[in-house]
Amino acid sequence: MISFHTPYAKVDSSPVLEAIKAESSSGASGYYKLPFDTLALESALAYSTREHFSSITDLVIIGVGGSSLGTRAVYAALGHSCRSATRRVHFLEHTDPFETRRVLESITLKSTHFLLISKSGTTIESISLVKFLITHFDLLSSANKQHLSCITDSGSPLESFAKAQGLECFTIPANVGGRFSVLSLVGLVPLSLLGLDISALLQGARAMMESFFAGKEGHIIDKAAFLAKHHKQYPISVLFSYGSVFSELNRWFVQLWGESLGKSLSQADSSSTQGVGLTPVGLVGSIDQHSFLQLIVQGARDKVVSFLSLSDECDKVDSSEDSSFIVPHCHLAGLESTDFVNGTPFLRLLNLQKQATLETLESLAIPTDSIVLERLDEWHIGALVVYFELLTSCTGVLLGVNAYDQPGVEFGKRRLRTYFA
Amino acid sequence: MISFHTPYAKVDSSPVLEAIKAESSSGASGYYKLPFDTLALESALAYSTREHFSSITDLVIIGVGGSSLGTRAVYAALGHSCRSATRRVHFLEHTDPFETRRVLESITLKSTHFLLISKSGTTIESISLVKFLITHFDLLSSANKQHLSCITDSGSPLESFAKAQGLECFTIPANVGGRFSVLSLVGLVPLSLLGLDISALLQGARAMMESFFAGKEGHIIDKAAFLAKHHKQYPISVLFSYGSVFSELNRWFVQLWGESLGKSLSQADSSSTQGVGLTPVGLVGSIDQHSFLQLIVQGARDKVVSFLSLSDECDKVDSSEDSSFIVPHCHLAGLESTDFVNGTPFLRLLNLQKQATLETLESLAIPTDSIVLERLDEWHIGALVVYFELLTSCTGVLLGVNAYDQPGVEFGKRRLRTYFA
Repeated sequence: MISFHTPYAKVDSSPVLEAIKAESSSGASGYYKLPFDTLALESALAYSTREHFSSITDLVIIGVGGSSLGTRAVYAALGHSCRSATRRVHFLEHTDPFETRRVLESITLKSTHFLLISKSGTTIESISLVKFLITHFDLLSSANKQHLSCITDSGSPLESFAKAQGLECFTIPANVGGRFSVLSLVGLVPLSLLGLDISALLQGARAMMESFFAGKEGHIIDKAAFLAKHHKQYPISVLFSYGSVFSELNRWFVQLWGESLGKSLSQADSSSTQGVGLTPVGLVGSIDQHSFLQLIVQGARDKVVSFLSLSDECDKVDSSEDSSFIVPHCHLAGLESTDFVNGTPFLRLLNLQKQATLETLESLAIPTDSIVLERLDEWHIGALVVYFELLTSCTGVLLGVNAYDQPGVEFGKRRLRTYFA
Repeated sequence: MISFHTPYAKVDSSPVLEAIKAESSSGASGYYKLPFDTLALESALAYSTREHFSSITDLVIIGVGGSSLGTRAVYAALGHSCRSATRRVHFLEHTDPFETRRVLESITLKSTHFLLISKSGTTIESISLVKFLITHFDLLSSANKQHLSCITDSGSPLESFAKAQGLECFTIPANVGGRFSVLSLVGLVPLSLLGLDISALLQGARAMMESFFAGKEGHIIDKAAFLAKHHKQYPISVLFSYGSVFSELNRWFVQLWGESLGKSLSQADSSSTQGVGLTPVGLVGSIDQHSFLQLIVQGARDKVVSFLSLSDECDKVDSSEDSSFIVPHCHLAGLESTDFVNGTPFLRLLNLQKQATLETLESLAIPTDSIVLERLDEWHIGALVVYFELLTSCTGVLLGVNAYDQPGVEFGKRRLRTYFA
C-alpha cells in the first residue's frame, strides 16, 4: 500500500478523468496500456532466462534519457534486495571519454552483454557509442553478436539494422514516449536481467492504473489542480525523497516532469516567450537538509514540496536480526547532546527527520504533500511509477499542454548537424 | 587557463570588490584565506604519507553537506587521473540502512580508514553513524583507533572527544562555513589520501583568488550583478555541465548557491515571506539534453544558464594513442543518418553538442554564459572552485544577504528534538 497525504483543495475530478480516458482510448499516449501487456512481460522473462546469460556478469546499457532513466530509477530503489543475482550494470549515456573509459576498463566481453536502447533508433550519442563498441569488440562477428541486443520503436531504422544483422531486437509501440517507457520492454528487459521481479512491478503498476481509472485516486487530480492553478505563484516542484534508494528515481521524475510540462503554449512559434512549465527539483533527505533546505525555508516562496519516504517497517522485511541498523546506546564523552537518538532505528531516525522538515514547512505555510511506501519492493515501485506518470498527465491536461512531445529538443539537434555540413 | 565568456553588461566592479575585501579582512568569512594556508597543506600531505595508510585500500568518509560535497566534487572530476592510487572512497551521509549496509558489506576493517567530518561536531547523522561504526568495529580499542580520525571546528565537542580518546583530529577555523570548506583540511585530507595533488589544487585556487582581488576578474562581478538585478525575472540558475566528471560538482554548486543566497531579507522573522534567493539546478550534458532541456527551451523564461565544459584537448593529455575515444568510421546499414559524426573525437562531439545547445538558447534570447577549462587537472579545479565561491559571495553582496549563515536549517533540527522529549 502507498499512503498519500494530499492536503490540497478537493476538486471535481470528472473532467480530468474523462480527458485521461480519452487520451488512453485514442492512443494519444500508449503508456496507459503498458501494465496490462502480458506479451511484453512474457517476452522479457523468457529472454532473461536464456542460456547465454548464465555466463554474463555485467550488463552495459547504451541509452540516454528515457532509455536509461527508468531502469536506473527502479534498479537503484530495489537493487539492494536482489544482490543474489550478482550481475552488475553500467550505463553508457553520452560520448564522455572519461566515463566510457572507466566502464570499458571494468568489463570483459566474454561475461558482458550490451543492450542498446533507442526509441528513434538514431540517437546520436547511443549510435556513436555502439559504433565504438562494435569496432572495439568486433560485436557483429558471428561469434560475438549474441552479446548485443537492441530495443527500439517498431519500424525504426535500428530495427531494420538489427534484423539484417541477426541481432535480437525488441520493439515498443511508437506512442509510448521515452519518459513514459519504463514499464515497456525498455525497462522490463534490463530489469529482469538484473534479477528484479518484473511481474510484481507490473502488478503494482496495474493496481494503481485500475484504481485511478475507477475514480479512486482523486488525490492525484486534486494535486494536479493545485499545481496547475498556482503554476505562476509556485513554478518550482520539489520532490524531497528520504533515502538514497530514491536518488535515481528523482532524476527520472525530473525528466518526466520537466520534459512533459515545459511547453510553449502556442506550440507553433518556438521563439514565443509564452512558455509554461513547472521546474522539477529532486532532493534526497536527510542529505539535502544540509544543502537545499535553507533556500526552501527562507528563500522566495515559489516552491511546492512533495515528500517521498518509506515506512519505518521497510528495513525489517529482508534483514536478519544481526544486521539491523539501530543507533547504539553509545555514550561518547563530550557528545552527550547527540544521545537523544540512541536506540532509534536508522530508518526511523530518517523518517523523523522527514517529519520534522515537513512540519517546519507546513508551519511556514509552504505547500506540501507526502507519499509513504509501506514496503520497498517491486509492487510498490510499480505503483509509484504510475502515480507520477498519472500526476504528470493530469497536470498536463490542466495546464493545457501536450505532455507527450518534446519539440524543443530538436532545435539543438538540427544546429549540431550544421557544424558538419 | 579557464576561459570565461560572460556576455552580461559591464558594471563598475569597485563597490563589490571593496565589500569582498572587507569580508576577507574582517574575517566575516575565512574561505578567502584558505588557498594561502601552507600549514594546512603540509599537515594534510604529512598525514597522508603515514605508514598506517600503506595497507589502507578503502576510505570511508562520514559527513554530510559541506563535509562531503566538496570532496565528492573534486574527486569525481579528477579521480580518473589518479587511479594508480587504487584506493576506493565511500560516503556515509545519513542513516539510510540500505546505503549503510551496502558500504559495510564492501569493506573490511583491516584495510579501511574512517574519516569523521563534522564542523559543529554534533551533526546528528554523522555522530549516529560513527556510534554505529564504533560499536560495530570496536573502533575505540587501542588496536583499532588508528582507523578513525576526525576533522571539526577548532574548539568543538568533537575535538574534545577525539583528544580524550587519542584519535587523530584536524581542526578548521570556525569562520569557514561547510559549503566553503573544500579547500580547508575538510577537503585536503581526504583528497590527499585519495591520491590527488592538493598542492596544485591550492595553486589554482590561489591564482584565481589573487587575480580577483587584483581586480582582474571583473566578469565575476558582471555576472553577479546581472543575476542580482534580474533575480525576480530569472529566479532559477542553471549550471549545465558537459561531462559526467562534473556530476558531483553540480551537487556542490547547488548547496553553495542555494544555501548561501536563499535567505529571508529581514533575517529576523523566519515566517516572513520576503525571502530572496536563486534556485540552483545542476544538469549534465549531453545527458540532460534528453531531459531538462525541453523545459528551458519552451517552458517559462525564468532561467539563466551557465555552461561548463572541457576544451577538446582535455582527453589527449593523459591518454596513450591506443585508448583515444573517437567515433569510428563505421557504416551501419540503415543507420546512415548518423554517419555525419564518424571520425569525431568523443569529447569534441560532446563539446559540439554543448555549442549547439548554447547557440539555440542564445537564439531564443535566454541569458547564457560559458566557462571552459583548458585542462582537467587539480590546478583548474582549484581555480574553478574559487570562481564559484567568489561568484556566490559577490551575488550575496548585491542581493544584500548574508551568504555565510543558514538559520533556516535550525527549525527542523529543533523540531526533531521535540519528538524525543
